[in-house]
Amino acid sequence: MFSGAQISLYPMSDDFVDIILNAIKALDPYRDSFRIETDDLSTLLVGPPEQLFPAMRDLFVAAAASGRHCVLSATVSRGCPGEPDDPICTPAERPEVPAPLEERVALAVRTAAQAADTGQEIAVQFSFYPLGRGHHMDEIYGCIDFLKSSGVFERSKNFCTKLRGDAGQVFATLEQAFLRFGSPEGHVALDLTVSANSPTPR
Amino acid sequence: MFSGAQISLYPMSDDFVDIILNAIKALDPYRDSFRIETDDLSTLLVGPPEQLFPAMRDLFVAAAASGRHCVLSATVSRGCPGEPDDPICTPAERPEVPAPLEERVALAVRTAAQAADTGQEIAVQFSFYPLGRGHHMDEIYGCIDFLKSSGVFERSKNFCTKLRGDAGQVFATLEQAFLRFGSPEGHVALDLTVSANSPTPR
Repeated sequence: MFSGAQISLYPMSDDFVDIILNAIKALDPYRDSFRIETDDLSTLLVGPPEQLFPAMRDLFVAAAASGRHCVLSATVSRGCPGEPDDPICTPAERPEVPAPLEERVALAVRTAAQAADTGQEIAVQFSFYPLGRGHHMDEIYGCIDFLKSSGVFERSKNFCTKLRGDAGQVFATLEQAFLRFGSPEGHVALDLTVSANSPTPR
Repeated sequence: MFSGAQISLYPMSDDFVDIILNAIKALDPYRDSFRIETDDLSTLLVGPPEQLFPAMRDLFVAAAASGRHCVLSATVSRGCPGEPDDPICTPAERPEVPAPLEERVALAVRTAAQAADTGQEIAVQFSFYPLGRGHHMDEIYGCIDFLKSSGVFERSKNFCTKLRGDAGQVFATLEQAFLRFGSPEGHVALDLTVSANSPTPR
């Protein structure tokens, strides 16, 4: 298994460099779990799939605490056949055979509901891509069923789904979408936009 | 066919609202071609696949002319089976049967090379997702062959490919990747990050 994310943080502020450098300290508790590389476009996290969303949540909540309009954009991936297996990515849970879609929807709803609040409201939109399977739309529709039952569903948009709520529950919901839909060993990618403190009316 | 993009513009500046409102005027010549909807996270363009990249190029070059560090993030999609066919999206060219991969690579290189310069240097990274086919990696590797021959290839990164060059040629290269790889009628998505004026050293 190879899993990770390319993440970028965009504070809409003249002080964007300081806001980013400050927020990045929120990744310190995760540094032992990940290989981290940065260039001028994004920061790569390579590590276990179930730690990616807590790390992104803590990074984003720290940036949003600046009070400025901030966006986090990420490409999250697991199981890409073009990437070598990496022991650092070993998932905590790795079922050989996926449970039926209905069971996975119910388990995802129960698990995400246990997330603790952070006090930071966020809006999110994301696209879910289970690759390399003939019936990719079944997994997408199953994932959408889960999202609609998640308590943070806002609406379906073209090409993506929009969520809104406390960062704790929203990131837990994203994590369940990423971990439980698509083949357990398969190639799944997720294209994510997270926003806080936007001046645009909903 | 249904095709379009969810696009967002992030100027790292206290004046982000003015920079965005100013840049959006660059979309005026395209308004007859697209259905356009905006919310607090993104602007949706629905229209012909071959007009999406010129529209994004002109929008981004207008924002980057502010001199501030600006990023455009987009989810671009065609052929999603979950979206209804829409006459506004009818592509100019629509082959029934795809040409062999090698021919498409050569044609994409020739076509992208004809792009006019804009005078704006940009860096880009993007992921290409041909969905719902067993051999999706063949199309991805074919697309990467094209990118490596394109003249704007910078490097492969985990989960994505990085390009750098004049916005004219880079957006033309993205367009060729989107139009010529993956099944002509199939579901293809592209997850795109475009950056200019970054203070981060390469």
